[in-house]
Amino acid sequence: MESTTTSDIEIMLSSQSKINEVDFENLTFGTVFTDHMLVCDFKNGEWQKPVIQPYQPFTLDPSTKVFHYGQAIFEGMKAYKDEQGDVWMFRANENFNRFNKSAIRLAMPEVPEEVFMGGLRKLLHIEKDWVRYGMGRSLYIRPYMIATGEGVIAQPSSEYKFVIILSPAKSYYNQEVKVVIANHYSRAANGGIGAAKAAGNYAGQFYPTKLAVEKGFQQIIWTDDATHTKLEEAGTMNVFFRINNTLITAPTSERILDGVTRKSLIDLAKREGIDVEVRSLLVDELLNAAKNGTLKEIFGAGTAAVINPIVGFAYEDLYFDLPKIENSMAMELKDKLNKIQYKLAEDTFGWTEKIE
Amino acid sequence: MESTTTSDIEIMLSSQSKINEVDFENLTFGTVFTDHMLVCDFKNGEWQKPVIQPYQPFTLDPSTKVFHYGQAIFEGMKAYKDEQGDVWMFRANENFNRFNKSAIRLAMPEVPEEVFMGGLRKLLHIEKDWVRYGMGRSLYIRPYMIATGEGVIAQPSSEYKFVIILSPAKSYYNQEVKVVIANHYSRAANGGIGAAKAAGNYAGQFYPTKLAVEKGFQQIIWTDDATHTKLEEAGTMNVFFRINNTLITAPTSERILDGVTRKSLIDLAKREGIDVEVRSLLVDELLNAAKNGTLKEIFGAGTAAVINPIVGFAYEDLYFDLPKIENSMAMELKDKLNKIQYKLAEDTFGWTEKIE
Repeated sequence: MESTTTSDIEIMLSSQSKINEVDFENLTFGTVFTDHMLVCDFKNGEWQKPVIQPYQPFTLDPSTKVFHYGQAIFEGMKAYKDEQGDVWMFRANENFNRFNKSAIRLAMPEVPEEVFMGGLRKLLHIEKDWVRYGMGRSLYIRPYMIATGEGVIAQPSSEYKFVIILSPAKSYYNQEVKVVIANHYSRAANGGIGAAKAAGNYAGQFYPTKLAVEKGFQQIIWTDDATHTKLEEAGTMNVFFRINNTLITAPTSERILDGVTRKSLIDLAKREGIDVEVRSLLVDELLNAAKNGTLKEIFGAGTAAVINPIVGFAYEDLYFDLPKIENSMAMELKDKLNKIQYKLAEDTFGWTEKIE
Repeated sequence: MESTTTSDIEIMLSSQSKINEVDFENLTFGTVFTDHMLVCDFKNGEWQKPVIQPYQPFTLDPSTKVFHYGQAIFEGMKAYKDEQGDVWMFRANENFNRFNKSAIRLAMPEVPEEVFMGGLRKLLHIEKDWVRYGMGRSLYIRPYMIATGEGVIAQPSSEYKFVIILSPAKSYYNQEVKVVIANHYSRAANGGIGAAKAAGNYAGQFYPTKLAVEKGFQQIIWTDDATHTKLEEAGTMNVFFRINNTLITAPTSERILDGVTRKSLIDLAKREGIDVEVRSLLVDELLNAAKNGTLKEIFGAGTAAVINPIVGFAYEDLYFDLPKIENSMAMELKDKLNKIQYKLAEDTFGWTEKIE
């Protein structure tokens, strides 16, 4: 192995790469994984030595706590290749910080920076060939942690496994997205775990989303659970509304994920002189804006899709198509963000980090 | 094997039992498992043949959906041995029905009755020796289902594993339980998954409970997340309050689990002529009752502990000890319920089913 500052990470390389078996032109998101993964176990009250090893299954007892009590958190971010063939991470440090906030909320141990960030840098260095150049192409990074202690008693686990797996990706959503505004189901409680990237937050969304899909929609715009009057998230993404030339997105809270794409878009929009309001848009305001023609755009923002324009929404018995517009802020911001990610424009924010 | 109506269940018996290695006098709840488990896989849109096999670990890909999106549900119930050595299930059909309600809410496939109930009966028949006679002794039954499909995209899995494992148990809580009334954190949202026995509901409780433990309490009494004025559950149990001679327990809702012990206690109390009110008790009512001496008892109700008396509670800066009373309704109801479970009293409700 090359000499890098990884004396504290054990590296076991795969004897053979499967990269030549992968059709990079036809990738289904999140289904193909690279040759290696990082694994670090927490036991006896401390993190053990992280290991980069061939991608391989885990062997877990049927009483493993993640199966029963849901202590499981994750992150999602991407690495990109530039025209020169260098690989860049985008704001991975933000994901690292959020991961540990999720860990605290789920009563799981925080992962040390040298394990999460140090391990990730080394893993990306080893898997550089899996990042392909070209707009929309990326290597999706999935760090996660699960409770691996055994025993069916509802108490926090004393053992955990931190893992990073990598999946080559092309663009995420291709279809036109129509959404339903939630008026009964919800994704997060006040004082709950909605701000954590916890596995349990996702499972609860599937059934309401299935009901929406059965009615011809693809996603749900979630509202606050107490009153269903405040617009909060779109599917598994943050959500932005453009009324006239103002962008509006909900403030982060215990119910809303502090999305890295969301905050990057807010910064980018401000730099571009776009008026951004971080406040709760009310359902009534949205309906009025749709009726009087001032509602121009709605889009989701998240790592997987970056920006996902919404073409129409339903609320109770009403349905509204979004107007087709020339100068879409969603498309402008997506383009500017992509150019930073692919190193095609100057990164004035310091968001990108080169993998050496 | 004996001839039973299990031609549709494949049975692979362990070559050697580990029962003689188990110290039944010193059992930690949920840590010792019997020789066999039932496993049934769902794939290609249908349930495969259930298998009773030696208790053994699972091999799962790092991208398995239960690790990432939290599709995981479970049940908990008990089997008891009577003086004659016969084994009885207690209201297992209620757990079966609730399991499938949880499955629907988590967008998981419902488990057929012949797999859940038929498999359970056969498994208990095989493991009869693991049920010991004596008050407080039981065999804890843990059916659960996890998403076993692979891929890190936030969509319902297409593959699942249904499992039943069994754990011999003695009584659950021994310590005196003091609780904190939640005024910030919460366990369930309106329109959320609080009524489902979903893994994700438990992980979210651990951190607030840890904060309570650090202050010298053992559990939290959860309140509604929107106003924190309605008393809803105690830890992972339903909760009953006795004011004067009236028992009060919250109605089931989207936020509250429809507990089998809870509903059994309501029926038992009514049969005994105890006044039961199924309504939301308000925090203010509780504080007033504690101050004016009409609050007599608080207890949690759930399968693991059956009834768990609470000896004191804190609310913000206030602390109240519960009075020590002679004629405890909690103890009376627990005794009557236990006698039905152990077949020491007539089961006028038809709650018990003999394992043949």
